[in-house]
Amino acid sequence: MNKNLIISEILENSISKLSESDSCQTAYLPSHGKPMPSSDSLREIVNLLREILFPGYFGTSNLKPENVRYYLGVNVDKVFQLLSTQIRRGICFACREEKNTNCKHCEDNAPELAAEFISRLPQIRQKLSTDVKAIFDGDPAVRSYGEVIYCYPTIRVMTNHRIAHELLKLEIPLIPRIISEMAHSETGIDIHPGAEIGEYFAIDHGTGVVIGETCVIGKNVKLYQGVTLGAKSFPLDENGNPIKGIPRHPIVRDNVVIYAQATVLGRITIGENSTIGGNVWVTQDVSPNSKIVQQKSTSGAGI
Amino acid sequence: MNKNLIISEILENSISKLSESDSCQTAYLPSHGKPMPSSDSLREIVNLLREILFPGYFGTSNLKPENVRYYLGVNVDKVFQLLSTQIRRGICFACREEKNTNCKHCEDNAPELAAEFISRLPQIRQKLSTDVKAIFDGDPAVRSYGEVIYCYPTIRVMTNHRIAHELLKLEIPLIPRIISEMAHSETGIDIHPGAEIGEYFAIDHGTGVVIGETCVIGKNVKLYQGVTLGAKSFPLDENGNPIKGIPRHPIVRDNVVIYAQATVLGRITIGENSTIGGNVWVTQDVSPNSKIVQQKSTSGAGI
Amino acid sequence: MNKNLIISEILENSISKLSESDSCQTAYLPSHGKPMPSSDSLREIVNLLREILFPGYFGTSNLKPENVRYYLGVNVDKVFQLLSTQIRRGICFACREEKNTNCKHCEDNAPELAAEFISRLPQIRQKLSTDVKAIFDGDPAVRSYGEVIYCYPTIRVMTNHRIAHELLKLEIPLIPRIISEMAHSETGIDIHPGAEIGEYFAIDHGTGVVIGETCVIGKNVKLYQGVTLGAKSFPLDENGNPIKGIPRHPIVRDNVVIYAQATVLGRITIGENSTIGGNVWVTQDVSPNSKIVQQKSTSGAGI
Amino acid sequence: MNKNLIISEILENSISKLSESDSCQTAYLPSHGKPMPSSDSLREIVNLLREILFPGYFGTSNLKPENVRYYLGVNVDKVFQLLSTQIRRGICFACREEKNTNCKHCEDNAPELAAEFISRLPQIRQKLSTDVKAIFDGDPAVRSYGEVIYCYPTIRVMTNHRIAHELLKLEIPLIPRIISEMAHSETGIDIHPGAEIGEYFAIDHGTGVVIGETCVIGKNVKLYQGVTLGAKSFPLDENGNPIKGIPRHPIVRDNVVIYAQATVLGRITIGENSTIGGNVWVTQDVSPNSKIVQQKSTSGAGI
Amino acid sequence: MNKNLIISEILENSISKLSESDSCQTAYLPSHGKPMPSSDSLREIVNLLREILFPGYFGTSNLKPENVRYYLGVNVDKVFQLLSTQIRRGICFACREEKNTNCKHCEDNAPELAAEFISRLPQIRQKLSTDVKAIFDGDPAVRSYGEVIYCYPTIRVMTNHRIAHELLKLEIPLIPRIISEMAHSETGIDIHPGAEIGEYFAIDHGTGVVIGETCVIGKNVKLYQGVTLGAKSFPLDENGNPIKGIPRHPIVRDNVVIYAQATVLGRITIGENSTIGGNVWVTQDVSPNSKIVQQKSTSGAGI
Amino acid sequence: MNKNLIISEILENSISKLSESDSCQTAYLPSHGKPMPSSDSLREIVNLLREILFPGYFGTSNLKPENVRYYLGVNVDKVFQLLSTQIRRGICFACREEKNTNCKHCEDNAPELAAEFISRLPQIRQKLSTDVKAIFDGDPAVRSYGEVIYCYPTIRVMTNHRIAHELLKLEIPLIPRIISEMAHSETGIDIHPGAEIGEYFAIDHGTGVVIGETCVIGKNVKLYQGVTLGAKSFPLDENGNPIKGIPRHPIVRDNVVIYAQATVLGRITIGENSTIGGNVWVTQDVSPNSKIVQQKSTSGAGI
Repeated sequence: MNKNLIISEILENSISKLSESDSCQTAYLPSHGKPMPSSDSLREIVNLLREILFPGYFGTSNLKPENVRYYLGVNVDKVFQLLSTQIRRGICFACREEKNTNCKHCEDNAPELAAEFISRLPQIRQKLSTDVKAIFDGDPAVRSYGEVIYCYPTIRVMTNHRIAHELLKLEIPLIPRIISEMAHSETGIDIHPGAEIGEYFAIDHGTGVVIGETCVIGKNVKLYQGVTLGAKSFPLDENGNPIKGIPRHPIVRDNVVIYAQATVLGRITIGENSTIGGNVWVTQDVSPNSKIVQQKSTSGAGI
Repeated sequence: MNKNLIISEILENSISKLSESDSCQTAYLPSHGKPMPSSDSLREIVNLLREILFPGYFGTSNLKPENVRYYLGVNVDKVFQLLSTQIRRGICFACREEKNTNCKHCEDNAPELAAEFISRLPQIRQKLSTDVKAIFDGDPAVRSYGEVIYCYPTIRVMTNHRIAHELLKLEIPLIPRIISEMAHSETGIDIHPGAEIGEYFAIDHGTGVVIGETCVIGKNVKLYQGVTLGAKSFPLDENGNPIKGIPRHPIVRDNVVIYAQATVLGRITIGENSTIGGNVWVTQDVSPNSKIVQQKSTSGAGI
Repeated sequence: MNKNLIISEILENSISKLSESDSCQTAYLPSHGKPMPSSDSLREIVNLLREILFPGYFGTSNLKPENVRYYLGVNVDKVFQLLSTQIRRGICFACREEKNTNCKHCEDNAPELAAEFISRLPQIRQKLSTDVKAIFDGDPAVRSYGEVIYCYPTIRVMTNHRIAHELLKLEIPLIPRIISEMAHSETGIDIHPGAEIGEYFAIDHGTGVVIGETCVIGKNVKLYQGVTLGAKSFPLDENGNPIKGIPRHPIVRDNVVIYAQATVLGRITIGENSTIGGNVWVTQDVSPNSKIVQQKSTSGAGI
Repeated sequence: MNKNLIISEILENSISKLSESDSCQTAYLPSHGKPMPSSDSLREIVNLLREILFPGYFGTSNLKPENVRYYLGVNVDKVFQLLSTQIRRGICFACREEKNTNCKHCEDNAPELAAEFISRLPQIRQKLSTDVKAIFDGDPAVRSYGEVIYCYPTIRVMTNHRIAHELLKLEIPLIPRIISEMAHSETGIDIHPGAEIGEYFAIDHGTGVVIGETCVIGKNVKLYQGVTLGAKSFPLDENGNPIKGIPRHPIVRDNVVIYAQATVLGRITIGENSTIGGNVWVTQDVSPNSKIVQQKSTSGAGI
Repeated sequence: MNKNLIISEILENSISKLSESDSCQTAYLPSHGKPMPSSDSLREIVNLLREILFPGYFGTSNLKPENVRYYLGVNVDKVFQLLSTQIRRGICFACREEKNTNCKHCEDNAPELAAEFISRLPQIRQKLSTDVKAIFDGDPAVRSYGEVIYCYPTIRVMTNHRIAHELLKLEIPLIPRIISEMAHSETGIDIHPGAEIGEYFAIDHGTGVVIGETCVIGKNVKLYQGVTLGAKSFPLDENGNPIKGIPRHPIVRDNVVIYAQATVLGRITIGENSTIGGNVWVTQDVSPNSKIVQQKSTSGAGI
Repeated sequence: MNKNLIISEILENSISKLSESDSCQTAYLPSHGKPMPSSDSLREIVNLLREILFPGYFGTSNLKPENVRYYLGVNVDKVFQLLSTQIRRGICFACREEKNTNCKHCEDNAPELAAEFISRLPQIRQKLSTDVKAIFDGDPAVRSYGEVIYCYPTIRVMTNHRIAHELLKLEIPLIPRIISEMAHSETGIDIHPGAEIGEYFAIDHGTGVVIGETCVIGKNVKLYQGVTLGAKSFPLDENGNPIKGIPRHPIVRDNVVIYAQATVLGRITIGENSTIGGNVWVTQDVSPNSKIVQQKSTSGAGI
């Protein structure tokens, strides 16, 4: 048997195995044949929302007060169309995973949910505006508001977060998580869409920051790179599976600063006006106005 | 001389310098004129493999048991074509770097190597399926298997890793490293394709994780963000260059959990069922069933 | 009123609010209607520069000494065109933010600045060549120079940095920061374009590394993932705003190695030939030839 | 008032006029807001059908008997999805134009119609195969069947025609006409989808050929460039509008050849085995086995 | 000398010859280095204008009265930007060809000219609306106005013509001709932008129609495929070159029908309500209410 | 059985039939699995050649004498790569059609053939330059050489023809015909690559022109739209198939003008300095300096 025939047979064989029902179930292929949420479409939605929230900085670049409403009108209309479809798919996806056979009713709701979300865009823009100001006021290296909007990963991640958080509040499944993961991939900052974050919030540099699902963060909080606001442990149910939805991440009050690489774990409270130093490990409440630092390093050999 | 002429001269001058043989050698331009591996093509290959391994979640979205085999067939055929070319280029690239002048023979092997790799895809899918399950079972924030596949960077990085690891075992040069770096860029998780990783592996959040070339990781291991499994030091040869290929990264046994920002260095063994706390620095063996934590932080001034 | 009409009204309402003058000011929409810098164009410029600096590795893949000058010529010409436009927009953007009403004069300078930048490309290539060598010499896992160029995030980030640093020295506003953020997003390594970095510089793995605006780094320095070279604090002016441009980040002398997750803060000096261990927190000068390590971890319960 | 303001006002003014309800009605803008058929999607459908009908010649180029069924399967599935949508839109479009307010029922039929069309593809391929043979047998300039498929506009136009004709027989509105116009634009050959055309049909060169809606053409007919098979006149109804659907174009029997630029008009019959010479004008029946030619030209002055 | 070297030398040699100043002049390469008009940009402009003139039929497909103004606003703004640039380039191009060295002044006019053109769009739409009606009223094969807009090449060519004719009246060089040639390529109908064409104009099928620069066509005129309205001859100047701009094409009065392949040449007048039969050659005035037909064909041998 | 299942079955059934060996043979699917020539790649090649032959008019638009050679160098190199591949595929395609089983040898020739073709580009440019001049000198409507290059279909079709004719002379199969058909589709002018056409050749308007394989056309010839230079009949071999390659199309001597819609058939000679009027049918030799016109039309009823 010649070489080309052998190769054809290997490929054929592999295709057969990969198409087998068992292997497809291993890959969690649904059997319903309904279209699933599309990452590409969600990426387009987020880009359009970015153009809506900060017109001129993203997308068409020479907007001015006279023509901005046309561009906003078109972009809002496009977001409405695309988001309605993705919301419908997200709802359908969740229903099927939960073995509902009749999710027709809830899907019909998708356009209203998309419109409701769009009605909240002015407030989202307002909140993001305070985040821009927080960065500008706190970083001696920045020269202008525009530089913050263009260059700071915190604005990128907070745009996605404030979008995803509103979608989550509308009880839309899956879609918010995909949107927050996009920002995680682009910035290295991982904020669960469930986290509640107040105004005037800033993350500097940001790579490695983790903010868990049940975090509650006040106003005027600043984090540095590598900070974790995570869970310490979580209760299991009688089957040994983690119980979903229990508050298990920190509460951070107003005016707190947390320095690089600090790890704050569990449903503890960092009191207002406190400062947490870099590279520390915090698992208990911190009272207001505290300062926490790592023990001194020592010089030594052995590296 | 007018302004435009001066600019033309500056550009011309710079082009000349950049084209000089010496400067080109500085840029490591090969002299053979053979096509080099293409990152764009490798990106397309990885995307096709992702569609093959998790059909429906990536690429065409409304697959169902009736039509999935056509899509798998086309995607496998495309991967075979593209990968054969890239393997050939990778082999040629390595030969030239090693000053072989006759690499014709080894190049001819490329289609067989691509077919052999494709024959391993069913097992790769099987292993990734356990990774999905590991995440689902361990994270109270997750709602469905689909959410894990769509949103968790650990699935993205492990898809690339399990692909790259098989290609490395087939002794294909360069290509595996490019594939693992793609995932590093997207997820902030840096796994060398040489690392051996068992089933049911999970990384939570993940940004900043580093897993070195000679690591050996058992089953049911979980890492958090910022964990390093690295080398402490490495022996040099008589010319002062590092000796390649010596085991120098940790062995992590089954059922180990390592928390955020921990740094584990050197050819040490973390015994089974152990837990390593966050932000610690470990350079010696840890016996089975241990728990290692950082010393207490203290409150203090001086930030 | 029917469902479609209600939705139309909600969308219309949201578009109106988003178009209002007040809301647009919140979004920092400039009123001048001039085109702003374009991230897409800057991304294309950086890709072209990468093709110029390492011909054959990026872009067209089968270059050889005979035809390389044509490709260099075209790419240099394209960079000149695109960069002139972006420099002009960057200057204009900065002028407007500073309320200058006449920036016509400075804009006219853009082609000269672009040409001046291009004249420095041969030196940039030369410096990057030493960075490639530094990685190759220091990592036992690497097999060839080509692997370094293709796969190491440090080369990607240093390409952007050495470009952005030259643009900053030409006093071009905003553009350098956008370029450095691109690399930050791709690699998780955040280097401010103001930082001065010597030859033969290497970052291994790199995710989470931060190098601040006023850092000065000598020759043959190596950093590992998660290292911060940051500011400890910064003086405020009479209005409580940070004073811009004051040196506030570390000076790192020649031949220093800093291990994973170390945090070095403030205008301190790390003396030559020193080694800083992983996960430490350094806020004071380190004398030459020192070794600094974290205190020992202890075994314990309570995770 | 300055120049920019005047321009802004002119643009604003023009947008207002173009948006006015009256002007939009002039442009036949429907008021229902339903998506209309998409030329881009229909172009994609035709390209996919061309790949299905002549695999290997269009689209993926290295098909072979072993893998052709995967590519056919994917392409058929894609055509089914896309065509179902376009059929639905075409039906809806026609309903609205006819002021039906309830076209929900007929739209639901779209997937069945698409499937029924797909079931006829094997016969369409069979007929096109005879058209390829007709060209090959009749043109001394052609070297291979492949050359006919790649290069002859008659194959391109007959592919579209045989597709459009089947869609028309399924009573799908609008879509068939758009498909036949695509071929008209590409080839200069205008065949109404209503025309019935037998096997083994050939058009040589073809530019300017017109074949009207109610033509009936037998087997083994050959036309040259510029031939018109048109209507001479058509009866009007009581309102002076043309009555639709009345047979008004020629019947051309088997084995007829019609040379360049001949114009054949009205519901006449060209008898079998006849030859019509170039540049003639025929408005009456031609009996079988006839030869019709133009009167002799004369030499003369006056140009 | 080996084969690869010989090939390299041939290529090098050819590049040198093609780059020589003499050969470049043969190719009419201008020496000024100014950007020339761009066919791609003009194609985009025409597509945007088509979306503006017939909203919903081209481009975004689900417009409705509520959102149409946003889409019109964005498209008008984009046309203004793109067209200003192309007008500037067209003026500059013409200046340089005429060896003007200072065309700065006329270029500055480009935005006003673009705005003036845009102010005429409502009238252009109005006229095209009558062309749609003319086709609908005259063709028994058509089912709806929408079918006319989607499928009839006459609408495509008249859209381009009515645009190009207005641009020509604004004395913009070159651009109108490029726009009319686009339609020629798509439809096989060649209308010079100088031709004046009244309302309610229809061309059926259309391939091969030619309408010359100085034609004047009344209202309610209908042409069939292959009709030429051309020049018979033209006077030469003392150097033997044709004198530009002299009326030399036919005047066609209201309510004339000209059948397929008729050739009408010279500055003659076809009187109102006349009918010209197919395949005839007319070079003298035709009085009103006439009918002109070709002499009878005869049966004969000799083909 | 439900509706979706029935549809699935219909699709499955159709895919099976289309994949059957018999049906695939009907579609002329080759069995060798070698890649076939690619229309997309040939289109790219022609576009690159157009940029090479008329730099500045197509592709990059702001070329000048200083930088034109870089663009030419890159474009020539790209054409060489792409054309070598397509020539190889064309040769292979022809071999297989002729049932050669060993075409390895001739394929190896492809790069030399591509290089040889490239060496002829300077002469092709030179000839096209005379075609531009012919149009400019003969059309009172034209304003500049640039307008001819941008707008006249004759330049587009002659560019493709002069390219295709050289490729044909190098005995490359299939590729020349695909290239000439591209121009046919774009312009409605159908010139077989075999036709020999002298310098200073012009076609005005051009739609419907046909120039056959064995035509020989002198210098300074001008054709108008709809002219056919075709074959009258052709001898058959003993099997009733047309004999290939016999001269059967007209010879047109220097300085001939042929007006619109004239049909000239057979291996006849149109003597030099002759004029052929519009709409005539010529099948016999025309002596030099002749004028041929159609008989007078008459007025009449009956349309």
